[in-house]
Amino acid sequence: MNGRFIVTYLVRSDAGSIAARARAIAVEQSVEMPLDAVTDADVQANIVGQVDGIADCGGGRFAVRIALAAETVGGDAAQLLNMAFGNSSLQSDVTLVGLESPPGFAGPRHGIAGLRARAGAQGRALTCAAIKPQGLAPERLAELMARFARGGLDFVKDDHGLADQAYSPFAARVPACAAAARQATTETGRLTRYVPSLSGSLDRLRSQGRIARAEGLDTVMVAPMLAGFATIQAFAREFPDLALIAHPSLGGAARIAPELLVGQLFPLIGADAVIFPNYGGRFGYSETTCRRIAEGARGAGTLPVPAGGMTLARVPELLDFYGAETMLLIGGNLLQAGDRLTEQAASFAKCVATHTYEAP
Amino acid sequence: MNGRFIVTYLVRSDAGSIAARARAIAVEQSVEMPLDAVTDADVQANIVGQVDGIADCGGGRFAVRIALAAETVGGDAAQLLNMAFGNSSLQSDVTLVGLESPPGFAGPRHGIAGLRARAGAQGRALTCAAIKPQGLAPERLAELMARFARGGLDFVKDDHGLADQAYSPFAARVPACAAAARQATTETGRLTRYVPSLSGSLDRLRSQGRIARAEGLDTVMVAPMLAGFATIQAFAREFPDLALIAHPSLGGAARIAPELLVGQLFPLIGADAVIFPNYGGRFGYSETTCRRIAEGARGAGTLPVPAGGMTLARVPELLDFYGAETMLLIGGNLLQAGDRLTEQAASFAKCVATHTYEAP
Repeated sequence: MNGRFIVTYLVRSDAGSIAARARAIAVEQSVEMPLDAVTDADVQANIVGQVDGIADCGGGRFAVRIALAAETVGGDAAQLLNMAFGNSSLQSDVTLVGLESPPGFAGPRHGIAGLRARAGAQGRALTCAAIKPQGLAPERLAELMARFARGGLDFVKDDHGLADQAYSPFAARVPACAAAARQATTETGRLTRYVPSLSGSLDRLRSQGRIARAEGLDTVMVAPMLAGFATIQAFAREFPDLALIAHPSLGGAARIAPELLVGQLFPLIGADAVIFPNYGGRFGYSETTCRRIAEGARGAGTLPVPAGGMTLARVPELLDFYGAETMLLIGGNLLQAGDRLTEQAASFAKCVATHTYEAP
Repeated sequence: MNGRFIVTYLVRSDAGSIAARARAIAVEQSVEMPLDAVTDADVQANIVGQVDGIADCGGGRFAVRIALAAETVGGDAAQLLNMAFGNSSLQSDVTLVGLESPPGFAGPRHGIAGLRARAGAQGRALTCAAIKPQGLAPERLAELMARFARGGLDFVKDDHGLADQAYSPFAARVPACAAAARQATTETGRLTRYVPSLSGSLDRLRSQGRIARAEGLDTVMVAPMLAGFATIQAFAREFPDLALIAHPSLGGAARIAPELLVGQLFPLIGADAVIFPNYGGRFGYSETTCRRIAEGARGAGTLPVPAGGMTLARVPELLDFYGAETMLLIGGNLLQAGDRLTEQAASFAKCVATHTYEAP
């Protein structure tokens, strides 16, 4: 099937109905109209979705493979989601679980190698913390940034709730935190990367990207489900010098499989690293899901970043689980150290630096 | 609670755990860190989310009301979703079901009155059809546009799958269809509004909006979940002359209640009309859900547009159900008429025009 790409759905159905249901999904996600009203032979042959296969997964669930025409996507990332799951997302029996990328998607520009180069670290996992709570003024956030940097972490990101609020405008917060990171370098001899969170429309992302550049920053965080896939795609093209860390906000796990959304689709639109909820935390993702997200991301050249309620005590376990090709992101648990924040960050950095990694 | 807005979640829990779970959601959706590490008194008092109430809905479900600080949103539509449901969307026990709008959101600019003025129709429902399938060349789509217009419909929209594909580029399709609509006016004496579907990043929406304007069009369709809420908000501000019809693509009903997403949030960011899956069609929305979406939209001044597998035969039933303050959108069922498309469209127009509406 030349010029087609396979999209896979998990569908709740009985065995007698699944063939018809699969054909209905193929129509829904392509021409969305009664086939007998499609009079054009080219459209029938080249545009109408085709059922490529149906596999019984047991328990009244079937994996349905649909071959969609790559032409319908035309290289636009929002249109990719539209064709893969636009209307079917509104039907409760269907979950999107797989997608072969059609042509036209660049994927990560910096990826694992670019993030390792920024951190100056090989053969070990990378470390990341977050500055918060939101509500603090820029100078207070910058103070936290400085203390994490003195602890020797690789990356420190904005809390994803930090946007452009009156109490901490982007144009004030980012220069303050970038300066704090540079200042700490004079003490530690290495640069902890400050990673601001970009938000809003493409215009706002642009002006925020320019501020980040002007401060000498080379890595930023974006939330593709909030900003829109096409926005991220456009931003990545326009700021090829910035590495992108994707945040899963609004990624509601229920209807697009997280290993697909975070592990594959975020990389597809240019994420160099993907943050996702770690197993055993407060998000209920299983070990299997987390392993698949991490493997999917690495397969695309994107660095997996487990996060969410992780503690310093779990770092060895997580390094055994994820291995060296990962970045660990700990926020609240480090911030709980209070006055000992720098020392806590240093323990985190040391634990990751001295861990015995199994050969990949 | 000055400066706060209430967000309501439906939470699966047992009675003994719900108070703690509610507090955890309040933290997750505000500062997202252990409260004992929040040392700033202002942040504790003014930024940390507060549990405003918990109601037992029976069956192990609780309605949890959380008061979030309006300051955290700052008038940005993507940030509104981030604060209301960013991380909690990743937790499978939580559904977002209600949201009081914080300040800073304009809502629909044209709304019901603006769409009625365009159609030149009062006291009856409005009519809409869709041109498709995708894959057709611009002149073929323009031909369908002309035939629907001759039938006397109020609005004819692009299929939401039509983007900027090689077989039907926006810059060719839209002038062709707009010209067809104008041409039909010379025969019918009234202008059927052609409604192009806009897609891609804000830049692309902008250039598409300019093309639509240049063709004299005054109504366009957008998909907020694909484009991103902040994108739509920015576009609506920049093109205040264009009425916006929102398409629910990727609106996956499972985790944000459809009556909230389509009936309230789409209007909030400027939708003048909202398309949603009608009950009894292929999307499984209940009558109750559809009624709530329609009532919510009208309450915001936005026109409800039920659609999705609707047939001409059901028009009287749907008019009784939705009343006159609505627009009916029929696509495939009209296109099935083949050579009799204009006559079928005319029947649709007549049925809506001659229906006996109950006084509101």
